[in-house]
Amino acid sequence: MKMSNLYMPTLRQDPAEAEIPSHQLLLRAGMIRKLVSGVYSYLPLGYRTIRKIENIVREEMDNKGAQELLMSAIQPKELWEKSGRWDNFGPEMFKLRDRSEREFCLGPTHEEYFTNLIKDEVNSYKQLPLIIYQIQTKYRDEKRPRFGLIRAREFIMKDAYSFDVDEDGMKLSYQKMWDAYDAIFTRLKLNYKVVQGDTGAMGGKISHEFMAMSEVGEGRIAYCKACDYAATDEKADVVINIEDDEKLLDIEKIYTPEIKTIEDLTNFLKIDKRKFGKAIIFKAAGKPIVVLIPGDRELNETKLINYLKIAEHELEMADEDTIRKITMADKGFTGPIGLKDARLIVDKTITKIRNIVVGANETNYHLKNVNYGRDFQAEVVDDLLLVEEGDTCPNCGSKLYIDRGIEVGNIFQLGTKYSKSLNATFLDENGKEREFVMGSYGVGVSRSVAAIVEQYHDEKGIIWPFVVAPYHVIITVVNTKKEEQIALGERLYNELKNKGIEVLLDDRNESAGVKFNDRDLIGIPARITVGKLASDGIVEFSLRKSSEKEELKAEDVYDRILLAFKQEGFELK
Amino acid sequence: MKMSNLYMPTLRQDPAEAEIPSHQLLLRAGMIRKLVSGVYSYLPLGYRTIRKIENIVREEMDNKGAQELLMSAIQPKELWEKSGRWDNFGPEMFKLRDRSEREFCLGPTHEEYFTNLIKDEVNSYKQLPLIIYQIQTKYRDEKRPRFGLIRAREFIMKDAYSFDVDEDGMKLSYQKMWDAYDAIFTRLKLNYKVVQGDTGAMGGKISHEFMAMSEVGEGRIAYCKACDYAATDEKADVVINIEDDEKLLDIEKIYTPEIKTIEDLTNFLKIDKRKFGKAIIFKAAGKPIVVLIPGDRELNETKLINYLKIAEHELEMADEDTIRKITMADKGFTGPIGLKDARLIVDKTITKIRNIVVGANETNYHLKNVNYGRDFQAEVVDDLLLVEEGDTCPNCGSKLYIDRGIEVGNIFQLGTKYSKSLNATFLDENGKEREFVMGSYGVGVSRSVAAIVEQYHDEKGIIWPFVVAPYHVIITVVNTKKEEQIALGERLYNELKNKGIEVLLDDRNESAGVKFNDRDLIGIPARITVGKLASDGIVEFSLRKSSEKEELKAEDVYDRILLAFKQEGFELK
Repeated sequence: MKMSNLYMPTLRQDPAEAEIPSHQLLLRAGMIRKLVSGVYSYLPLGYRTIRKIENIVREEMDNKGAQELLMSAIQPKELWEKSGRWDNFGPEMFKLRDRSEREFCLGPTHEEYFTNLIKDEVNSYKQLPLIIYQIQTKYRDEKRPRFGLIRAREFIMKDAYSFDVDEDGMKLSYQKMWDAYDAIFTRLKLNYKVVQGDTGAMGGKISHEFMAMSEVGEGRIAYCKACDYAATDEKADVVINIEDDEKLLDIEKIYTPEIKTIEDLTNFLKIDKRKFGKAIIFKAAGKPIVVLIPGDRELNETKLINYLKIAEHELEMADEDTIRKITMADKGFTGPIGLKDARLIVDKTITKIRNIVVGANETNYHLKNVNYGRDFQAEVVDDLLLVEEGDTCPNCGSKLYIDRGIEVGNIFQLGTKYSKSLNATFLDENGKEREFVMGSYGVGVSRSVAAIVEQYHDEKGIIWPFVVAPYHVIITVVNTKKEEQIALGERLYNELKNKGIEVLLDDRNESAGVKFNDRDLIGIPARITVGKLASDGIVEFSLRKSSEKEELKAEDVYDRILLAFKQEGFELK
Repeated sequence: MKMSNLYMPTLRQDPAEAEIPSHQLLLRAGMIRKLVSGVYSYLPLGYRTIRKIENIVREEMDNKGAQELLMSAIQPKELWEKSGRWDNFGPEMFKLRDRSEREFCLGPTHEEYFTNLIKDEVNSYKQLPLIIYQIQTKYRDEKRPRFGLIRAREFIMKDAYSFDVDEDGMKLSYQKMWDAYDAIFTRLKLNYKVVQGDTGAMGGKISHEFMAMSEVGEGRIAYCKACDYAATDEKADVVINIEDDEKLLDIEKIYTPEIKTIEDLTNFLKIDKRKFGKAIIFKAAGKPIVVLIPGDRELNETKLINYLKIAEHELEMADEDTIRKITMADKGFTGPIGLKDARLIVDKTITKIRNIVVGANETNYHLKNVNYGRDFQAEVVDDLLLVEEGDTCPNCGSKLYIDRGIEVGNIFQLGTKYSKSLNATFLDENGKEREFVMGSYGVGVSRSVAAIVEQYHDEKGIIWPFVVAPYHVIITVVNTKKEEQIALGERLYNELKNKGIEVLLDDRNESAGVKFNDRDLIGIPARITVGKLASDGIVEFSLRKSSEKEELKAEDVYDRILLAFKQEGFELK
């Protein structure tokens, strides 16, 4: 493509709306544009990268015998009511009505739909196993769309669904998809970790997430260097061995005015933060609950939601009125003793720490030396805590580390959740009716673009790997007014193009500075500069990822590019 | 692909819902499935064909220098309010609100969106001309979704938009797209006609439609064999030369009870149908209008809508109450004289026919010998009539023929309609601000699948041309229990696959009858039957489109297939 014709509106400045490198650079490089919050267009360069990722995903899925199809994005309410997810997804689902007032959603995912399709078409074990997938635009009305393509409301996803006769079969399909994802993210040159995930709204018991490592990632990952344990922070088990053999002391009520924070309180009382029973008050599906955890830890809301068996959007912080109603006190003095009409839930650690300090449910007062069992009872949950760096590895007892990642893929062992609720059955070898055992598998296609840019950029712009670069090579003609430069540029351009290489020719009537800046910004991996030595048939070759420049004879350019491909393990199709 | 693994749920019976061959066959061949009215999934075979069509469209668009991108499907209301089309599209647009109650639509087309994008990014004549396009899922909440992929509510479309400095530039872009469409539909092997179209909701003045000829097509086309005139029936000019020199007679009121139809009336009065003034009563944007045309012709509602400058959905038949209110009579006796509070609009022919019969606006009575000018006045419109076979060609005066077609493409000269309303301007060579001159261009990708099937099928099933066939070749192993048959089948399968041919191997444990029926149904163009002569290395070759069978040595199969490709002008990539 000649850049004099290319629609590539680069920007000189970082757009104010963009906080992280991938968002800034994709906007600046003219690869994406925002329409409204969380809704983007992919401009020509960006869409080329999207399509390359799609093709890699497609090839690896096909390699595993998965079959591509395409469902509609709009789905009728009835399907989602059967699985119970119409309400469960809550406001995150875009909903609409057609002209006859029938209700639909824009598919955030397609478990119900695929199950419903298969239910009518596949009725014998002979037709199993089956893995089908689509690459499709998906919709989630995110509460906080942000970070460009990372958390968008309209996005491109590959979603696959497996149907097996039994649990063992499903595990084989699961492993196939795991392998396909390894192949995909390896080909995409992503540095990623596979971690245990929470199954959340998807249902099922086991899931894994493929996390592209990045400090701007929204996912916190706990992992062990001694063994292969790795999990999202939503999922990671927290193991705390408490051996507190303090003597039980008598409860004391203490006057604690103007003491607003745990910090202040523990300083004032000269106690360890752990000795403080931190109360967090929610409304869960409309009803008040108080959760008590040690003062030195954070609550893991996902674990709480799973324990309560509610939808994510049903858990909200309690307002001050509610707090007053259940504690008869101001906010900041909530404790486990004397609550009215609220469920009290404690993390197991609370039952093991002696003589804790808690709110007195009376404004300006706390209680000292409160002990679980003697002074109060509650629903005890094994683990409600958020993992922290330095926690004990639940697998090997070593130390856990924390890193951040961008979730680019996930795989779920769904079991029979959907086949049961949608009554999707087949006849087994004995003619017995059985429910399909299912799995579901997602790859964030548009999100992967952002993840790659997070891992491949510098202060000047993007540094695409060949495999997903919008073009492989950019030829910059330094001075388009010099006939020998433009002639050599065009000659090389045609020669490389005819050999199947994807080439941009910067033939724009712009200054060399503008052209060099643009090529750094858009990150084409191999660069040819046609400048003053053009008359001698000499050009400059460089890679975006290194600062080394080489002078080359024009006739050696093609081989040099092939070498660069080879060095990166990239093969032209 | 081995068919023992292929997800291809064929049906023995025509589904009750399907009225036309393409709908029946695509369902029966397991290529598509309905979710709800007008909403379909493309199953693996169907989606392969879809993607082949997409690639042909993409190649031909790219050949013309058009650049691909991808916009979001959801679009904010504000954009559509600026062009006035939020209301204009009416109930045909799917509308929704996000969690903050902001209003959006699901794009039925993208003129506003592309104009808005370009407006912010392109500001100099140097960046023009520009043609950008996308292949995307589109949404129209059709009043009567039907005929499967032909009139669906969610469908795949290629939409392109051109931006030029002036009218002449736009005409060049228009011609480029016309040429691209010729290339596309020729490659798709469609028998099609390019006809003048009405610009309708799109705006602009000139448009053409690419019509795939088919007796089940929803589009009626008027065309001339003597010259190249061709137009949709919505658009076609009706030329009627009336030389009526009857003497004007006096009005007579006649008693016409029990006379319900024009047929009855003209028989009763022994007059030519043309002498009857047929009144049709509408509500147009809520207000009553009466349209009078000759009794031997049909009204062209599109011409009426254009004359009234209203949206299509604003024209509705008047209810009986309205009729009574404006005529003081029962339905069936409406005429031009004495109407109350209704606009009267007449086709020009009415002013030229003498002594016509019309309703008397009195139940059970008509008036004879009514004459325009002498007896009533009205808004006279040059042409409100629907074209009929035998009408005079407006171009050369010869005879018009009528045929039916499926609209698979359309091209519009939009002019500045959208750039004006969205204030999208650029600076010309003189530094003067000017509005982009635009065109827009659509190809119905999913609809083309149906159009191809309409033109390529017989009573047994689909007959795909190679270029869009889900697979090029099907190898049927007659008896999979015979080792030599399955071995030869697999050998040929692997050999052809390795040579880049797309092959299905029917290795299913089904009767030969089932397999032959399925292969006829799904319409794979080249067929190899591996049967009893397998032990001698002999197979049978046939084409789906002919009934001839040839015995071939297995080693000659590849060449025979290449020959078949060549005979159809198909080249393997």
